[in-house]
Amino acid sequence: MTAGPATPLPPAYGELFARHAEIGALEECSAILSWDQSVTMPPAGAAARGEQFAALSAATHRLAADPAIGTLLDRAEADEVSSLPAEHAANLMLMRRLHTRRVALPERLVADLARASTACETTWRGARANSDFAAILPALSELVGLTREAAARLADATGLAPYDALMDGFQPGMRTDRIAPLFDELERFLPQLIAARLAAQARATPPLQPRGPFPIAVQRQLARRLAEVVGVDFNAARLDESAHPFSGGTPDDVRITVRYREDDFAQALLAVVHESGHALYQRNLPPLLRRQPAGDAAGMAVHESQSLTVEMQACRGDGFLGWLAPVLADAFGADPAFDAANLVKLWREVRRGFIRVEADELTYPLHVILRFRLETALIAGELEPAGLPRAWNAGFAALFGTPPPDDARGCLQDIHWYTGSFGYFPAYTLGAIAAAQLFQAATVSDPAIAAGLARGDFRPLEAWNRTHVHAHGAMLDLDGVIRAATGRGLEIAPFRQHLLCRYGET
Amino acid sequence: MTAGPATPLPPAYGELFARHAEIGALEECSAILSWDQSVTMPPAGAAARGEQFAALSAATHRLAADPAIGTLLDRAEADEVSSLPAEHAANLMLMRRLHTRRVALPERLVADLARASTACETTWRGARANSDFAAILPALSELVGLTREAAARLADATGLAPYDALMDGFQPGMRTDRIAPLFDELERFLPQLIAARLAAQARATPPLQPRGPFPIAVQRQLARRLAEVVGVDFNAARLDESAHPFSGGTPDDVRITVRYREDDFAQALLAVVHESGHALYQRNLPPLLRRQPAGDAAGMAVHESQSLTVEMQACRGDGFLGWLAPVLADAFGADPAFDAANLVKLWREVRRGFIRVEADELTYPLHVILRFRLETALIAGELEPAGLPRAWNAGFAALFGTPPPDDARGCLQDIHWYTGSFGYFPAYTLGAIAAAQLFQAATVSDPAIAAGLARGDFRPLEAWNRTHVHAHGAMLDLDGVIRAATGRGLEIAPFRQHLLCRYGET
Repeated sequence: MTAGPATPLPPAYGELFARHAEIGALEECSAILSWDQSVTMPPAGAAARGEQFAALSAATHRLAADPAIGTLLDRAEADEVSSLPAEHAANLMLMRRLHTRRVALPERLVADLARASTACETTWRGARANSDFAAILPALSELVGLTREAAARLADATGLAPYDALMDGFQPGMRTDRIAPLFDELERFLPQLIAARLAAQARATPPLQPRGPFPIAVQRQLARRLAEVVGVDFNAARLDESAHPFSGGTPDDVRITVRYREDDFAQALLAVVHESGHALYQRNLPPLLRRQPAGDAAGMAVHESQSLTVEMQACRGDGFLGWLAPVLADAFGADPAFDAANLVKLWREVRRGFIRVEADELTYPLHVILRFRLETALIAGELEPAGLPRAWNAGFAALFGTPPPDDARGCLQDIHWYTGSFGYFPAYTLGAIAAAQLFQAATVSDPAIAAGLARGDFRPLEAWNRTHVHAHGAMLDLDGVIRAATGRGLEIAPFRQHLLCRYGET
Repeated sequence: MTAGPATPLPPAYGELFARHAEIGALEECSAILSWDQSVTMPPAGAAARGEQFAALSAATHRLAADPAIGTLLDRAEADEVSSLPAEHAANLMLMRRLHTRRVALPERLVADLARASTACETTWRGARANSDFAAILPALSELVGLTREAAARLADATGLAPYDALMDGFQPGMRTDRIAPLFDELERFLPQLIAARLAAQARATPPLQPRGPFPIAVQRQLARRLAEVVGVDFNAARLDESAHPFSGGTPDDVRITVRYREDDFAQALLAVVHESGHALYQRNLPPLLRRQPAGDAAGMAVHESQSLTVEMQACRGDGFLGWLAPVLADAFGADPAFDAANLVKLWREVRRGFIRVEADELTYPLHVILRFRLETALIAGELEPAGLPRAWNAGFAALFGTPPPDDARGCLQDIHWYTGSFGYFPAYTLGAIAAAQLFQAATVSDPAIAAGLARGDFRPLEAWNRTHVHAHGAMLDLDGVIRAATGRGLEIAPFRQHLLCRYGET
């Protein structure tokens, strides 16, 4: 990062830069208000908050839809790009990408999608509670129909396949023909590894369960301390509570949330390190490109790679658990369950469950593979929404050995499809694969990283992540980040090695 | 309130209604983000928050400055106003008023004022800390110059005198020739009343001081309880902490803040009831006119009348203090200082201090009278900023008997002028006068009000305030509200009677 808004920018690009800064600032308003809605807003504020979001989104739209943007892009691309510093050239390219995607969808379709998505989500909540797929089918069918139309239009505008055009909105640059072989490779070894691990677990003494209750006040203190240990700077961040943990806010004002349960401290504790991984990424995005497309994260898979590097690679590793064990005993009182060896067993238990969000590291990718195959078929028109439960159950049985007992624990469990988010799911597993590859490269290139984790010092790891991932913003895509950091494109080998190492021997 | 957005509105007015709803929603975004900035935002978020406010204000400006608004106003006034229900006719009139004020100021002047105000405020913080008026004089002179220009332009556009045109932005309808006689009347009896009270205090046994420390956790609980007692509904409100107490947020999401000190519980406790008075007004504004000009508060003096009705009229009255005394003893432990008779003495002590915000009810109006006279002279060009310290000291000595020891405790103490807020100060004392007049009318018309306060029941008082003040929104101005509620325009007699009754005999 050498140039920035302080350097004089050529006129057309400079005007685009200013307009995107304003769009970005309005998006930051939405981010903070969205945090507020989940964390602090009193219930009666909900309707007014809806009006506020609508007004913000209309204001953003007015800026982004200004026809002058297209003209400015043409001029900047024709006359200015060759003189732009690299990061601004990348920014210009991403501005064009956003513009292409935006103009591809007529306003009528955007409005219909927003309405259909809200309606479907509302109905879905009841349908899931009652495990009643028939109740959601009409709303889902409408939403899938509109999403197919959007996918086709985006495909026309971008030259991508329809599903890829959707996925590109979540993880730029990722394509089905890149993912499918990776997922096939996973499928070739995961089921056997899971079976072997379950058999080994059945033979072994089960881990000790820590005895609660675990006072919330103590958990809060511990969560804050762990976030700081991981590297969160509370001069530029907050840690609060909400129904579902998330990381939000803005790069200079990162807001992470967790939820505490008195009978289980591990949930909040592992959530806080996971969200802290997201938070560090956001915090370390290139400051000279704040509120610009290139200053944003590189996509959801890269984001997930950063939370999983911290949670799965670092915090569930032997080194860190050795440091953590006495910290837990200090906080909650002595308990043999807090021995490092027991923590290792406890937090690596594998189960064949029906629910993705409760899944362990080893079975999680199978949940994602199932969803990826079903959603590509749905968007391609090879599967109709009415056929979803049957296809889900068959697919689940093929991967896990048994179908789910009902649709609530089957195709109704996740919110994504019912809000029209098709093309998002692969990011979870691409992130896990990327985390393993990045962490391997990091620990090989700098021995201080593993040594640091074993004494609760994350600074060497953060320094590596900052240089090799965070500082790129969105200037590189997933494969670009991985290649720049490791010398190779995204690949399964390090993830496989990680899983074998952690779960392959007992 | 009979009609609202549910009723079909005529086309031009309907379009204006929709546009103002959107402007109002963006203003609500600013209100919540402004609360967030004072209460929750981490320090590093400040610069980005500045960008967010700027983008929001630009978005609001684009809507409000659309030339179509003028055309729509012309059409609605010509063709539709006669068929509009009363509250919409009032809303249309207030839309026109906002439009007239907005177009009166060229964009260049608005931008210059914003810049000069920010620069002056920043310099003022250091100047006040060092009691260095010379340091702020250039910035203040520039700001006063720009404010005079704005006042002249607003005067041209509205037909008001320049100072009145500024004041009209804070308290619509209020005029210098309405205020001056009221303030003269105050000046005729206040100094003697203060002198007599001070002499009586000197003769009497001083009140007992409660012995601290007063644990913050206990104060927090008590503050929340008192807010609920006063009528704050935490389904639609929050109580938090910030450096200076305020009431903000939106009608459906009211946010009040206080600050706790372990050595003095009274500050937070009296602040919470004061801010709760503001909060109830905001909460009870007419819901069918949400985010419309007529659905807003009637002005800063009316707002202050509502906080002072609760704090000064109700909560410092004998009846409520009788209820409160055992509540305090319960919360903090028995202490003879918590006897009701002692609380009455303690919270009605009068002192001739230099600082407005620390002033008691009896001396407060003199602080305001001084500022009102100086700022009318400043805007009229009869006083130049360089002459402010001398004029302040002479004016203060005339009202209080002695000049302040330095400018920090003199003309530098308040932020208002140094952010360009000229015409605001009268609202504090107009609010106190209005509170006395409203409270007198309320307690005379409904004996349940005083009876309620004596047992900590504010519902009868809130019901009266809601009907007679809150429900009008901005459809009536200060005199209009007072006349509708009491049958007479704003007058000194009830305030004088209140002060005589409370401070005239010891």
